[in-house]
Amino acid sequence: MSDKTSELTNRTIGFIGLGFMGKPMARNLQAAGATMIIHSRSAGPVEELVAEGMTGAASPADVAAQAEIVILMLTDTTAVELVLTGPSGILTGLTANTLVIDMGTTLMTTTQALAAKVHDAGGAYLDAPVSGGTMGAEAGTLTIMAGGDDDAMDRAAPLFDVMGAKTTHVGGIGAGQVAKAANQVIVGLTIGAVAEGLSLARKAGIDPAKVREALGGGFADSRILEVHGKRMVDKTFAPGAKSTIQRKDMDQAETLAARLGMEMPATTLNRKLYDRMIAAGHGDLDHAALIAAIDPSAI
Amino acid sequence: MSDKTSELTNRTIGFIGLGFMGKPMARNLQAAGATMIIHSRSAGPVEELVAEGMTGAASPADVAAQAEIVILMLTDTTAVELVLTGPSGILTGLTANTLVIDMGTTLMTTTQALAAKVHDAGGAYLDAPVSGGTMGAEAGTLTIMAGGDDDAMDRAAPLFDVMGAKTTHVGGIGAGQVAKAANQVIVGLTIGAVAEGLSLARKAGIDPAKVREALGGGFADSRILEVHGKRMVDKTFAPGAKSTIQRKDMDQAETLAARLGMEMPATTLNRKLYDRMIAAGHGDLDHAALIAAIDPSAI
Repeated sequence: MSDKTSELTNRTIGFIGLGFMGKPMARNLQAAGATMIIHSRSAGPVEELVAEGMTGAASPADVAAQAEIVILMLTDTTAVELVLTGPSGILTGLTANTLVIDMGTTLMTTTQALAAKVHDAGGAYLDAPVSGGTMGAEAGTLTIMAGGDDDAMDRAAPLFDVMGAKTTHVGGIGAGQVAKAANQVIVGLTIGAVAEGLSLARKAGIDPAKVREALGGGFADSRILEVHGKRMVDKTFAPGAKSTIQRKDMDQAETLAARLGMEMPATTLNRKLYDRMIAAGHGDLDHAALIAAIDPSAI
Repeated sequence: MSDKTSELTNRTIGFIGLGFMGKPMARNLQAAGATMIIHSRSAGPVEELVAEGMTGAASPADVAAQAEIVILMLTDTTAVELVLTGPSGILTGLTANTLVIDMGTTLMTTTQALAAKVHDAGGAYLDAPVSGGTMGAEAGTLTIMAGGDDDAMDRAAPLFDVMGAKTTHVGGIGAGQVAKAANQVIVGLTIGAVAEGLSLARKAGIDPAKVREALGGGFADSRILEVHGKRMVDKTFAPGAKSTIQRKDMDQAETLAARLGMEMPATTLNRKLYDRMIAAGHGDLDHAALIAAIDPSAI
Protein backbone atom coordinates (compact mmCIF):
# COMPACT_ATOMS: atom_id res chain seq x y z
CA MET A 1 0.00 0.00 0.00
CA SER A 2 1.12 3.52 -0.73
CA ASP A 3 2.33 5.56 2.21
CA LYS A 4 1.41 8.82 0.51
CA THR A 5 -0.89 11.17 2.31
CA SER A 6 -2.55 14.03 0.54
CA GLU A 7 -5.31 16.58 0.76
CA LEU A 8 -8.02 13.93 0.73
CA THR A 9 -9.20 14.27 4.31
CA ASN A 10 -12.94 15.14 4.38
CA ARG A 11 -13.20 14.40 0.65
CA THR A 12 -15.84 11.89 -0.47
CA ILE A 13 -14.77 9.78 -3.43
CA GLY A 14 -16.81 7.19 -5.29
CA PHE A 15 -15.15 4.11 -6.74
CA ILE A 16 -16.85 1.68 -9.11
CA GLY A 17 -15.06 -1.51 -10.19
CA LEU A 18 -13.09 -3.32 -7.51
CA GLY A 19 -11.02 -5.87 -9.41
CA PHE A 20 -7.30 -6.56 -9.10
CA MET A 21 -6.52 -2.94 -9.98
CA GLY A 22 -9.48 -1.11 -8.45
CA LYS A 23 -9.29 -2.61 -4.98
CA PRO A 24 -5.75 -1.43 -4.13
CA MET A 25 -6.40 1.96 -5.78
CA ALA A 26 -9.46 2.48 -3.54
CA ARG A 27 -7.46 1.42 -0.50
CA ASN A 28 -4.73 3.97 -1.27
CA LEU A 29 -7.31 6.76 -1.55
CA GLN A 30 -8.79 5.76 1.80
CA ALA A 31 -5.33 5.61 3.36
CA ALA A 32 -4.78 9.19 2.16
CA GLY A 33 -7.81 10.31 4.14
CA ALA A 34 -10.76 10.06 1.74
CA THR A 35 -14.23 8.81 2.63
CA MET A 36 -14.89 6.06 0.09
CA ILE A 37 -18.30 5.19 -1.44
CA ILE A 38 -17.92 1.97 -3.41
CA HIS A 39 -19.80 -0.27 -5.82
CA SER A 40 -18.91 -3.37 -7.81
CA ARG A 41 -20.66 -6.13 -9.78
CA SER A 42 -19.23 -8.74 -7.39
CA ALA A 43 -20.33 -8.65 -3.76
CA GLY A 44 -17.07 -10.10 -2.41
CA PRO A 45 -14.71 -7.12 -2.82
CA VAL A 46 -17.42 -4.70 -1.62
CA GLU A 47 -17.91 -6.68 1.60
CA GLU A 48 -14.16 -6.87 2.08
CA LEU A 49 -13.69 -3.11 1.76
CA VAL A 50 -16.81 -2.25 3.79
CA ALA A 51 -15.19 -4.28 6.59
CA GLU A 52 -12.23 -1.90 6.22
CA GLY A 53 -14.44 1.14 6.74
CA MET A 54 -15.68 2.01 3.23
CA THR A 55 -19.38 2.58 2.48
CA GLY A 56 -21.16 0.32 0.00
CA ALA A 57 -23.66 1.88 -2.43
CA ALA A 58 -26.52 0.04 -4.09
CA SER A 59 -25.87 1.27 -7.64
CA PRO A 60 -23.67 3.55 -9.73
CA ALA A 61 -26.42 6.20 -9.41
CA ASP A 62 -26.24 5.87 -5.65
CA VAL A 63 -22.45 6.39 -5.75
CA ALA A 64 -22.82 9.50 -7.92
CA ALA A 65 -25.46 10.95 -5.60
CA GLN A 66 -23.06 10.83 -2.64
CA ALA A 67 -19.61 11.57 -4.09
CA GLU A 68 -18.09 14.68 -5.65
CA ILE A 69 -15.67 12.57 -7.71
CA VAL A 70 -16.47 9.10 -9.09
CA ILE A 71 -13.68 6.86 -10.37
CA LEU A 72 -14.44 4.01 -12.79
CA MET A 73 -12.05 1.06 -13.01
CA LEU A 74 -14.03 -1.38 -15.14
CA THR A 75 -13.25 -4.34 -17.41
CA ASP A 76 -14.11 -2.92 -20.81
CA THR A 77 -15.91 -0.32 -22.88
CA THR A 78 -19.28 -2.07 -22.61
CA ALA A 79 -19.08 -2.01 -18.81
CA VAL A 80 -18.28 1.73 -18.82
CA GLU A 81 -21.29 2.44 -21.05
CA LEU A 82 -23.57 0.39 -18.79
CA VAL A 83 -22.35 2.00 -15.56
CA LEU A 84 -22.85 5.48 -17.01
CA THR A 85 -25.98 5.17 -19.16
CA GLY A 86 -27.72 2.00 -17.92
CA PRO A 87 -30.67 1.84 -15.51
CA SER A 88 -29.43 3.11 -12.12
CA GLY A 89 -26.40 4.39 -14.03
CA ILE A 90 -24.32 7.39 -12.98
CA LEU A 91 -26.22 9.73 -15.30
CA THR A 92 -29.42 9.09 -13.34
CA GLY A 93 -27.75 10.13 -10.08
CA LEU A 94 -25.42 12.88 -11.24
CA THR A 95 -25.35 16.09 -9.22
CA ALA A 96 -23.97 19.39 -10.52
CA ASN A 97 -20.19 19.33 -10.87
CA THR A 98 -19.79 15.61 -10.25
CA LEU A 99 -16.45 14.67 -11.81
CA VAL A 100 -16.38 11.23 -13.45
CA ILE A 101 -12.87 9.80 -14.02
CA ASP A 102 -12.63 6.69 -16.21
CA MET A 103 -9.31 5.01 -15.36
CA GLY A 104 -9.97 1.85 -17.38
CA THR A 105 -9.01 1.20 -20.99
CA THR A 106 -11.95 2.41 -23.06
CA LEU A 107 -12.45 3.06 -26.76
CA MET A 108 -11.71 6.74 -27.53
CA THR A 109 -14.88 7.33 -29.56
CA THR A 110 -17.07 5.89 -26.80
CA THR A 111 -15.19 7.99 -24.22
CA GLN A 112 -15.90 11.16 -26.20
CA ALA A 113 -19.61 10.29 -26.57
CA LEU A 114 -20.01 9.47 -22.87
CA ALA A 115 -18.10 12.57 -21.77
CA ALA A 116 -20.47 14.71 -23.85
CA LYS A 117 -23.46 13.15 -22.06
CA VAL A 118 -21.89 13.79 -18.64
CA HIS A 119 -21.13 17.40 -19.60
CA ASP A 120 -24.71 17.87 -20.85
CA ALA A 121 -25.96 16.64 -17.47
CA GLY A 122 -23.83 19.27 -15.67
CA GLY A 123 -20.94 17.01 -14.71
CA ALA A 124 -17.27 16.92 -15.66
CA TYR A 125 -15.25 14.07 -17.19
CA LEU A 126 -11.69 12.86 -17.45
CA ASP A 127 -10.30 9.79 -19.16
CA ALA A 128 -7.24 8.71 -17.20
CA PRO A 129 -6.21 5.15 -18.07
CA VAL A 130 -3.18 3.72 -16.36
CA SER A 131 -0.30 1.37 -16.88
CA GLY A 132 1.76 -0.37 -14.22
CA GLY A 133 -0.46 -3.32 -13.36
CA THR A 134 -1.50 -4.63 -9.96
CA MET A 135 1.94 -3.92 -8.50
CA GLY A 136 1.74 -0.27 -9.57
CA ALA A 137 -1.82 -0.03 -8.25
CA GLU A 138 -0.76 -1.39 -4.85
CA ALA A 139 2.34 0.76 -4.56
CA GLY A 140 0.62 3.93 -5.81
CA THR A 141 3.12 4.15 -8.66
CA LEU A 142 0.82 3.91 -11.68
CA THR A 143 1.55 5.82 -14.87
CA ILE A 144 -1.55 7.90 -15.61
CA MET A 145 -2.40 9.20 -19.12
CA ALA A 146 -5.11 11.82 -18.88
CA GLY A 147 -7.47 13.58 -21.28
CA GLY A 148 -9.86 16.41 -20.38
CA ASP A 149 -9.90 20.10 -19.47
CA ASP A 150 -7.60 21.90 -17.04
CA ASP A 151 -10.26 22.44 -14.36
CA ALA A 152 -11.01 18.74 -14.16
CA MET A 153 -7.26 17.95 -14.10
CA ASP A 154 -6.80 20.35 -11.17
CA ARG A 155 -9.62 18.67 -9.24
CA ALA A 156 -8.21 15.20 -9.93
CA ALA A 157 -4.56 16.06 -9.22
CA PRO A 158 -4.55 15.17 -5.49
CA LEU A 159 -6.13 11.78 -6.30
CA PHE A 160 -3.66 11.09 -9.13
CA ASP A 161 -0.85 12.00 -6.72
CA VAL A 162 -2.00 9.22 -4.40
CA MET A 163 -2.54 6.56 -7.07
CA GLY A 164 0.30 7.30 -9.48
CA ALA A 165 3.98 8.10 -9.82
CA LYS A 166 3.60 10.03 -13.08
CA THR A 167 0.62 11.77 -14.64
CA THR A 168 0.69 13.26 -18.13
CA HIS A 169 -2.08 15.57 -19.30
CA VAL A 170 -2.03 14.39 -22.91
CA GLY A 171 -4.83 16.56 -24.31
CA GLY A 172 -8.62 16.93 -24.43
CA ILE A 173 -11.26 14.26 -23.75
CA GLY A 174 -10.13 10.93 -25.25
CA ALA A 175 -6.43 11.85 -25.40
CA GLY A 176 -5.65 9.64 -22.40
CA GLN A 177 -7.35 6.70 -24.11
CA VAL A 178 -5.38 7.32 -27.30
CA ALA A 179 -2.12 7.34 -25.33
CA LYS A 180 -3.14 4.09 -23.63
CA ALA A 181 -4.01 2.52 -27.00
CA ALA A 182 -0.58 3.59 -28.34
CA ASN A 183 0.99 2.17 -25.17
CA GLN A 184 -0.69 -1.21 -25.63
CA VAL A 185 0.19 -1.32 -29.34
CA ILE A 186 3.84 -0.58 -28.56
CA VAL A 187 3.95 -3.07 -25.66
CA GLY A 188 2.42 -5.88 -27.73
CA LEU A 189 4.65 -5.25 -30.73
CA THR A 190 7.80 -4.90 -28.62
CA ILE A 191 7.03 -8.21 -26.93
CA GLY A 192 6.71 -9.65 -30.44
CA ALA A 193 10.05 -8.10 -31.42
CA VAL A 194 11.90 -9.56 -28.44
CA ALA A 195 10.15 -12.91 -28.98
CA GLU A 196 11.43 -13.17 -32.57
CA GLY A 197 14.93 -11.99 -31.71
CA LEU A 198 15.38 -14.40 -28.80
CA SER A 199 13.74 -17.28 -30.71
CA LEU A 200 16.19 -16.75 -33.56
CA ALA A 201 19.05 -17.08 -31.07
CA ARG A 202 17.61 -20.22 -29.49
CA LYS A 203 17.02 -21.85 -32.90
CA ALA A 204 20.62 -21.03 -33.86
CA GLY A 205 21.85 -22.81 -30.74
CA ILE A 206 23.00 -19.60 -29.04
CA ASP A 207 22.09 -18.93 -25.40
CA PRO A 208 19.24 -16.36 -25.45
CA ALA A 209 20.30 -15.16 -21.97
CA LYS A 210 23.71 -14.16 -23.39
CA VAL A 211 22.07 -12.47 -26.37
CA ARG A 212 19.75 -10.50 -24.09
CA GLU A 213 22.79 -9.47 -22.03
CA ALA A 214 24.70 -8.40 -25.16
CA LEU A 215 21.78 -6.24 -26.33
CA GLY A 216 21.22 -4.42 -23.02
CA GLY A 217 22.12 -0.73 -23.18
CA GLY A 218 22.06 -0.62 -27.00
CA PHE A 219 19.36 0.43 -29.46
CA ALA A 220 17.50 -2.87 -28.96
CA ASP A 221 17.12 -2.15 -25.25
CA SER A 222 13.66 -1.60 -23.77
CA ARG A 223 11.68 -2.17 -20.60
CA ILE A 224 10.19 -5.15 -22.46
CA LEU A 225 13.66 -6.63 -23.14
CA GLU A 226 14.51 -6.13 -19.47
CA VAL A 227 11.31 -7.48 -17.92
CA HIS A 228 9.54 -9.66 -20.50
CA GLY A 229 12.77 -10.72 -22.21
CA LYS A 230 13.90 -12.09 -18.86
CA ARG A 231 10.61 -14.00 -18.50
CA MET A 232 11.20 -15.51 -21.97
CA VAL A 233 14.78 -16.49 -21.10
CA ASP A 234 13.75 -17.98 -17.75
CA LYS A 235 10.49 -19.47 -19.13
CA THR A 236 8.52 -17.96 -16.21
CA PHE A 237 5.11 -16.86 -17.43
CA ALA A 238 3.02 -16.23 -14.31
CA PRO A 239 1.09 -13.03 -15.12
CA GLY A 240 1.97 -9.89 -14.83
CA ALA A 241 -0.60 -9.01 -17.42
CA LYS A 242 -2.59 -11.84 -18.99
CA SER A 243 -2.36 -12.49 -22.71
CA THR A 244 -6.16 -12.31 -23.02
CA ILE A 245 -6.12 -8.75 -21.65
CA GLN A 246 -3.31 -7.77 -24.01
CA ARG A 247 -5.32 -9.15 -26.95
CA LYS A 248 -8.46 -7.28 -25.83
CA ASP A 249 -6.48 -4.01 -25.74
CA MET A 250 -4.94 -4.68 -29.16
CA ASP A 251 -8.42 -5.45 -30.52
CA GLN A 252 -9.67 -2.14 -29.19
CA ALA A 253 -6.70 -0.24 -30.66
CA GLU A 254 -7.48 -1.88 -34.02
CA THR A 255 -11.12 -0.85 -33.73
CA LEU A 256 -10.02 2.73 -33.10
CA ALA A 257 -7.65 2.63 -36.08
CA ALA A 258 -10.44 1.31 -38.31
CA ARG A 259 -12.75 4.13 -37.20
CA LEU A 260 -9.98 6.61 -38.04
CA GLY A 261 -9.58 5.00 -41.49
CA MET A 262 -5.99 3.84 -40.93
CA GLU A 263 -4.24 0.50 -41.07
CA MET A 264 -1.81 -0.84 -38.47
CA PRO A 265 -0.42 -3.90 -40.25
CA ALA A 266 2.02 -4.96 -37.51
CA THR A 267 -0.69 -4.61 -34.85
CA THR A 268 -3.05 -6.74 -36.94
CA LEU A 269 -0.39 -9.43 -37.29
CA ASN A 270 0.52 -9.22 -33.59
CA ARG A 271 -3.12 -9.72 -32.58
CA LYS A 272 -3.25 -12.83 -34.81
CA LEU A 273 -0.15 -14.17 -33.03
CA TYR A 274 -1.94 -13.65 -29.70
CA ASP A 275 -4.95 -15.48 -31.20
CA ARG A 276 -2.62 -18.35 -32.05
CA MET A 277 -1.10 -18.71 -28.58
CA ILE A 278 -4.48 -18.24 -26.86
CA ALA A 279 -5.97 -20.95 -29.10
CA ALA A 280 -3.10 -23.17 -27.94
CA GLY A 281 -4.33 -22.68 -24.35
CA HIS A 282 -1.92 -20.01 -23.10
CA GLY A 283 -4.36 -17.10 -22.62
CA ASP A 284 -3.94 -17.00 -18.85
CA LEU A 285 -0.15 -16.75 -19.09
CA ASP A 286 1.75 -13.46 -19.04
CA HIS A 287 1.71 -11.58 -22.36
CA ALA A 288 5.43 -12.43 -22.70
CA ALA A 289 4.26 -15.97 -23.52
CA LEU A 290 3.56 -14.63 -27.02
CA ILE A 291 6.92 -16.26 -27.78
CA ALA A 292 4.95 -19.56 -27.96
CA ALA A 293 3.39 -18.30 -31.20
CA ILE A 294 6.90 -18.12 -32.72
CA ASP A 295 8.36 -21.21 -31.06
CA PRO A 296 5.91 -23.55 -29.29
CA SER A 297 8.81 -25.14 -27.38
CA ALA A 298 9.75 -21.79 -25.81
CA ILE A 299 7.31 -21.96 -22.90
CA MET B 1 38.10 10.35 -31.44
CA SER B 2 38.51 8.16 -28.40
CA ASP B 3 41.03 9.31 -25.80
CA LYS B 4 41.61 5.75 -24.62
CA THR B 5 45.13 4.42 -24.60
CA SER B 6 45.86 0.77 -24.23
CA GLU B 7 48.51 -1.88 -24.63
CA LEU B 8 48.66 -1.43 -28.37
CA THR B 9 52.10 0.19 -28.61
CA ASN B 10 54.37 -1.93 -30.85
CA ARG B 11 51.37 -3.99 -32.01
CA THR B 12 50.72 -4.28 -35.76
CA ILE B 13 47.07 -4.39 -36.67
CA GLY B 14 45.56 -4.84 -40.12
CA PHE B 15 42.31 -3.11 -41.01
CA ILE B 16 40.30 -3.85 -44.16
CA GLY B 17 37.21 -1.78 -45.01
CA LEU B 18 37.48 1.95 -44.35
CA GLY B 19 33.92 3.22 -44.67
CA PHE B 20 32.00 5.45 -42.27
CA MET B 21 32.53 2.94 -39.47
CA GLY B 22 35.95 1.49 -40.31
CA LYS B 23 37.81 4.77 -40.70
CA PRO B 24 37.21 6.11 -37.17
CA MET B 25 37.76 2.63 -35.68
CA ALA B 26 41.18 2.42 -37.39
CA ARG B 27 42.03 5.91 -36.18
CA ASN B 28 41.20 4.99 -32.58
CA LEU B 29 43.49 1.94 -32.76
CA GLN B 30 46.30 4.10 -34.12
CA ALA B 31 45.71 6.71 -31.41
CA ALA B 32 46.08 3.91 -28.83
CA GLY B 33 49.57 3.17 -30.15
CA ALA B 34 49.09 0.51 -32.83
CA THR B 35 50.94 0.37 -36.16
CA MET B 36 48.16 0.17 -38.73
CA ILE B 37 48.31 -1.74 -42.05
CA ILE B 38 45.24 -0.80 -44.08
CA HIS B 39 43.40 -1.77 -47.25
CA SER B 40 40.10 -0.74 -48.82
CA ARG B 41 38.28 -1.01 -52.15
CA SER B 42 38.23 2.77 -52.47
CA ALA B 43 41.56 4.60 -52.79
CA GLY B 44 40.33 7.80 -51.09
CA PRO B 45 40.17 6.67 -47.46
CA VAL B 46 43.46 4.75 -47.79
CA GLU B 47 45.28 7.88 -49.05
CA GLU B 48 43.68 9.93 -46.28
CA LEU B 49 44.84 7.54 -43.55
CA VAL B 50 48.27 6.98 -45.09
CA ALA B 51 48.71 10.76 -44.83
CA GLU B 52 48.00 10.30 -41.11
CA GLY B 53 50.81 7.75 -40.75
CA MET B 54 49.16 4.43 -41.55
CA THR B 55 50.66 1.98 -44.07
CA GLY B 56 48.70 1.02 -47.18
CA ALA B 57 48.78 -2.60 -48.35
CA ALA B 58 48.14 -3.76 -51.92
CA SER B 59 45.70 -6.54 -51.06
CA PRO B 60 44.02 -8.38 -48.19
CA ALA B 61 46.76 -11.04 -48.51
CA ASP B 62 49.36 -8.31 -48.13
CA VAL B 63 47.64 -7.06 -44.95
CA ALA B 64 47.55 -10.60 -43.52
CA ALA B 65 51.23 -11.16 -44.28
CA GLN B 66 52.21 -8.11 -42.17
CA ALA B 67 49.73 -8.05 -39.28
CA GLU B 68 49.17 -10.36 -36.32
CA ILE B 69 45.51 -9.31 -36.09
CA VAL B 70 43.36 -8.35 -39.09
CA ILE B 71 40.04 -6.57 -38.59
CA LEU B 72 37.36 -6.67 -41.30
CA MET B 73 34.73 -3.92 -41.43
CA LEU B 74 33.04 -4.63 -44.75
CA THR B 75 29.67 -3.89 -46.35
CA ASP B 76 28.14 -7.34 -46.51
CA THR B 77 28.60 -11.10 -46.45
CA THR B 78 29.72 -11.29 -50.08
CA ALA B 79 32.51 -8.78 -49.42
CA VAL B 80 33.72 -10.79 -46.41
CA GLU B 81 33.84 -13.98 -48.50
CA LEU B 82 35.78 -12.21 -51.26
CA VAL B 83 38.30 -10.61 -48.90
CA LEU B 84 38.96 -13.96 -47.22
CA THR B 85 38.77 -16.50 -50.05
CA GLY B 86 39.19 -14.46 -53.25
CA PRO B 87 42.38 -14.06 -55.30
CA SER B 88 44.87 -12.15 -53.11
CA GLY B 89 42.49 -12.89 -50.24
CA ILE B 90 43.57 -13.19 -46.61
CA LEU B 91 43.77 -16.98 -46.81
CA THR B 92 46.54 -16.69 -49.41
CA GLY B 93 48.62 -14.50 -47.05
CA LEU B 94 47.78 -15.99 -43.68
CA THR B 95 50.68 -16.68 -41.32
CA ALA B 96 50.46 -19.00 -38.31
CA ASN B 97 48.30 -17.55 -35.53
CA THR B 98 46.94 -14.65 -37.54
CA LEU B 99 43.71 -13.61 -35.83
CA VAL B 100 40.95 -12.48 -38.19
CA ILE B 101 38.16 -10.43 -36.55
CA ASP B 102 35.05 -9.79 -38.63
CA MET B 103 33.32 -6.76 -37.10
CA GLY B 104 30.75 -6.34 -39.88
CA THR B 105 27.26 -7.85 -40.03
CA THR B 106 27.68 -11.22 -41.72
CA LEU B 107 25.44 -14.26 -42.15
CA MET B 108 26.09 -16.75 -39.32
CA THR B 109 26.37 -19.79 -41.57
CA THR B 110 28.93 -18.05 -43.80
CA THR B 111 30.85 -16.90 -40.72
CA GLN B 112 31.08 -20.48 -39.46
CA ALA B 113 32.26 -21.78 -42.86
CA LEU B 114 34.89 -19.03 -43.24
CA ALA B 115 36.13 -19.45 -39.66
CA ALA B 116 36.65 -23.17 -40.35
CA LYS B 117 38.83 -22.32 -43.37
CA VAL B 118 40.87 -19.83 -41.35
CA HIS B 119 41.35 -22.39 -38.57
CA ASP B 120 42.36 -25.04 -41.13
CA ALA B 121 45.00 -22.63 -42.44
CA GLY B 122 46.44 -22.19 -38.92
CA GLY B 123 44.76 -18.90 -38.08
CA ALA B 124 42.19 -17.88 -35.48
CA TYR B 125 38.81 -16.21 -35.98
CA LEU B 126 36.32 -14.06 -34.11
CA ASP B 127 33.01 -12.63 -35.25
CA ALA B 128 32.49 -9.38 -33.39
CA PRO B 129 29.79 -7.25 -35.01
CA VAL B 130 28.95 -3.93 -33.42
CA SER B 131 26.12 -1.55 -32.84
CA GLY B 132 26.37 2.13 -32.08
CA GLY B 133 26.81 3.64 -35.52
CA THR B 134 29.32 6.19 -36.74
CA MET B 135 29.03 8.17 -33.51
CA GLY B 136 29.89 5.11 -31.44
CA ALA B 137 32.75 4.26 -33.80
CA GLU B 138 34.21 7.77 -33.47
CA ALA B 139 33.82 7.95 -29.70
CA GLY B 140 35.12 4.40 -29.13
CA THR B 141 31.82 3.49 -27.45
CA LEU B 142 30.59 0.69 -29.70
CA THR B 143 28.65 -2.25 -28.33
CA ILE B 144 30.52 -5.39 -29.41
CA MET B 145 28.86 -8.84 -29.65
CA ALA B 146 31.53 -11.51 -29.99
CA GLY B 147 31.67 -15.18 -30.94
CA GLY B 148 34.74 -17.42 -30.79
CA ASP B 149 37.04 -19.16 -28.34
CA ASP B 150 38.51 -17.73 -25.14
CA ASP B 151 42.10 -17.49 -26.47
CA ALA B 152 41.01 -15.36 -29.40
CA MET B 153 38.87 -13.22 -27.07
CA ASP B 154 41.89 -12.63 -24.82
CA ARG B 155 44.01 -11.53 -27.77
CA ALA B 156 41.28 -9.18 -29.03
CA ALA B 157 40.39 -7.69 -25.63
CA PRO B 158 42.82 -4.71 -25.75
CA LEU B 159 41.49 -3.78 -29.22
CA PHE B 160 37.85 -4.11 -28.15
CA ASP B 161 38.66 -1.92 -25.14
CA VAL B 162 39.77 0.83 -27.51
CA MET B 163 36.87 0.55 -29.96
CA GLY B 164 33.98 -0.25 -27.65
CA ALA B 165 32.25 0.61 -24.40
CA LYS B 166 30.80 -2.87 -23.85
CA THR B 167 31.85 -6.27 -25.15
CA THR B 168 29.83 -9.44 -24.57
CA HIS B 169 31.33 -12.84 -25.33
CA VAL B 170 28.06 -14.40 -26.50
CA GLY B 171 29.35 -17.89 -27.40
CA GLY B 172 31.29 -19.81 -30.01
CA ILE B 173 31.96 -18.84 -33.64
CA GLY B 174 28.84 -17.23 -35.14
CA ALA B 175 27.28 -16.31 -31.78
CA GLY B 176 28.18 -12.65 -32.23
CA GLN B 177 26.46 -12.62 -35.62
CA VAL B 178 23.36 -14.24 -34.14
CA ALA B 179 23.24 -11.57 -31.41
CA LYS B 180 23.62 -8.86 -34.06
CA ALA B 181 20.83 -10.43 -36.15
CA ALA B 182 18.58 -10.50 -33.05
CA ASN B 183 19.58 -6.87 -32.37
CA GLN B 184 18.59 -5.76 -35.87
CA VAL B 185 15.32 -7.71 -35.76
CA ILE B 186 14.40 -6.10 -32.43
CA VAL B 187 15.46 -2.62 -33.58
CA GLY B 188 13.45 -2.85 -36.82
CA LEU B 189 10.35 -4.23 -35.11
CA THR B 190 10.51 -1.74 -32.24
CA ILE B 191 10.76 1.13 -34.74
CA GLY B 192 7.65 -0.38 -36.37
CA ALA B 193 5.92 -0.55 -32.98
CA VAL B 194 6.62 3.09 -32.15
CA ALA B 195 5.63 4.10 -35.69
CA GLU B 196 2.18 2.49 -35.37
CA GLY B 197 1.59 3.83 -31.85
CA LEU B 198 2.53 7.43 -32.71
CA SER B 199 0.67 7.28 -36.05
CA LEU B 200 -2.49 6.18 -34.22
CA ALA B 201 -2.16 9.23 -31.98
CA ARG B 202 -1.63 11.62 -34.88
CA LYS B 203 -4.58 10.19 -36.82
CA ALA B 204 -6.75 10.58 -33.71
CA GLY B 205 -5.77 14.26 -33.54
CA ILE B 206 -3.67 13.84 -30.40
CA ASP B 207 -0.19 15.37 -30.17
CA PRO B 208 2.29 12.49 -30.65
CA ALA B 209 4.90 14.43 -28.64
CA LYS B 210 2.57 14.36 -25.62
CA VAL B 211 1.85 10.67 -26.13
CA ARG B 212 5.58 9.89 -26.32
CA GLU B 213 6.07 11.89 -23.10
CA ALA B 214 3.22 10.01 -21.37
CA LEU B 215 4.72 6.63 -22.32
CA GLY B 216 8.26 7.39 -21.13
CA GLY B 217 9.28 5.33 -18.11
CA GLY B 218 6.47 2.77 -18.57
CA PHE B 219 6.42 -0.65 -20.23
CA ALA B 220 6.30 0.96 -23.69
CA ASP B 221 9.60 2.73 -23.04
CA SER B 222 12.67 1.85 -25.09
CA ARG B 223 15.80 3.40 -26.54
CA ILE B 224 13.86 3.44 -29.82
CA LEU B 225 10.97 5.42 -28.26
CA GLU B 226 13.54 7.85 -26.82
CA VAL B 227 15.72 8.32 -29.90
CA HIS B 228 13.72 7.27 -32.97
CA GLY B 229 10.36 8.23 -31.44
CA LYS B 230 11.74 11.75 -31.05
CA ARG B 231 12.82 11.74 -34.70
CA MET B 232 9.27 10.72 -35.69
CA VAL B 233 7.72 13.43 -33.51
CA ASP B 234 10.12 16.11 -34.82
CA LYS B 235 10.06 14.75 -38.41
CA THR B 236 13.87 14.83 -38.54
CA PHE B 237 15.13 11.89 -40.56
CA ALA B 238 18.78 12.60 -41.33
CA PRO B 239 20.51 9.22 -40.82
CA GLY B 240 21.62 7.82 -38.10
CA ALA B 241 21.35 4.49 -39.78
CA LYS B 242 19.94 4.39 -43.31
CA SER B 243 16.74 2.50 -44.03
CA THR B 244 18.48 0.56 -46.83
CA ILE B 245 21.03 -0.79 -44.32
CA GLN B 246 18.27 -1.72 -41.88
CA ARG B 247 16.46 -3.61 -44.66
CA LYS B 248 19.66 -5.41 -45.66
CA ASP B 249 20.17 -6.56 -42.06
CA MET B 250 16.54 -7.70 -41.76
CA ASP B 251 16.92 -9.59 -45.05
CA GLN B 252 19.97 -11.35 -43.68
CA ALA B 253 18.20 -12.23 -40.42
CA GLU B 254 15.35 -13.70 -42.48
CA THR B 255 17.82 -15.73 -44.53
CA LEU B 256 19.31 -17.10 -41.31
CA ALA B 257 15.83 -17.95 -39.97
CA ALA B 258 14.98 -19.75 -43.21
CA ARG B 259 18.18 -21.81 -42.97
CA LEU B 260 17.23 -22.72 -39.40
CA GLY B 261 13.75 -23.75 -40.57
CA MET B 262 11.89 -21.12 -38.55
CA GLU B 263 9.45 -18.36 -39.41
CA MET B 264 9.64 -14.78 -38.12
CA PRO B 265 6.28 -13.40 -39.27
CA ALA B 266 6.67 -9.93 -37.77
CA THR B 267 10.17 -9.59 -39.24
CA THR B 268 8.85 -10.61 -42.66
CA LEU B 269 6.11 -7.99 -42.43
CA ASN B 270 8.54 -5.34 -41.15
CA ARG B 271 10.88 -5.93 -44.09
CA LYS B 272 7.92 -5.47 -46.47
CA LEU B 273 7.14 -2.15 -44.76
CA TYR B 274 10.77 -1.09 -45.36
CA ASP B 275 10.35 -2.20 -48.99
CA ARG B 276 7.31 0.06 -49.22
CA MET B 277 9.02 3.18 -47.86
CA ILE B 278 12.19 2.55 -49.87
CA ALA B 279 10.08 2.15 -53.04
CA ALA B 280 8.57 5.55 -52.14
CA GLY B 281 12.08 7.02 -52.30
CA HIS B 282 12.98 7.18 -48.60
CA GLY B 283 15.82 4.61 -48.51
CA ASP B 284 18.49 7.16 -47.64
CA LEU B 285 16.54 8.48 -44.66
CA ASP B 286 17.05 7.25 -41.11
CA HIS B 287 15.39 3.92 -40.33
CA ALA B 288 12.92 5.83 -38.13
CA ALA B 289 11.34 7.03 -41.39
CA LEU B 290 9.64 3.62 -41.52
CA ILE B 291 6.70 5.61 -40.14
CA ALA B 292 6.11 6.72 -43.76
CA ALA B 293 5.00 3.15 -44.54
CA ILE B 294 2.18 3.58 -41.98
CA ASP B 295 1.38 7.23 -42.66
CA PRO B 296 2.92 8.78 -45.80
CA SER B 297 2.25 12.26 -44.40
CA ALA B 298 4.38 11.57 -41.33
CA ILE B 299 7.71 12.52 -42.90
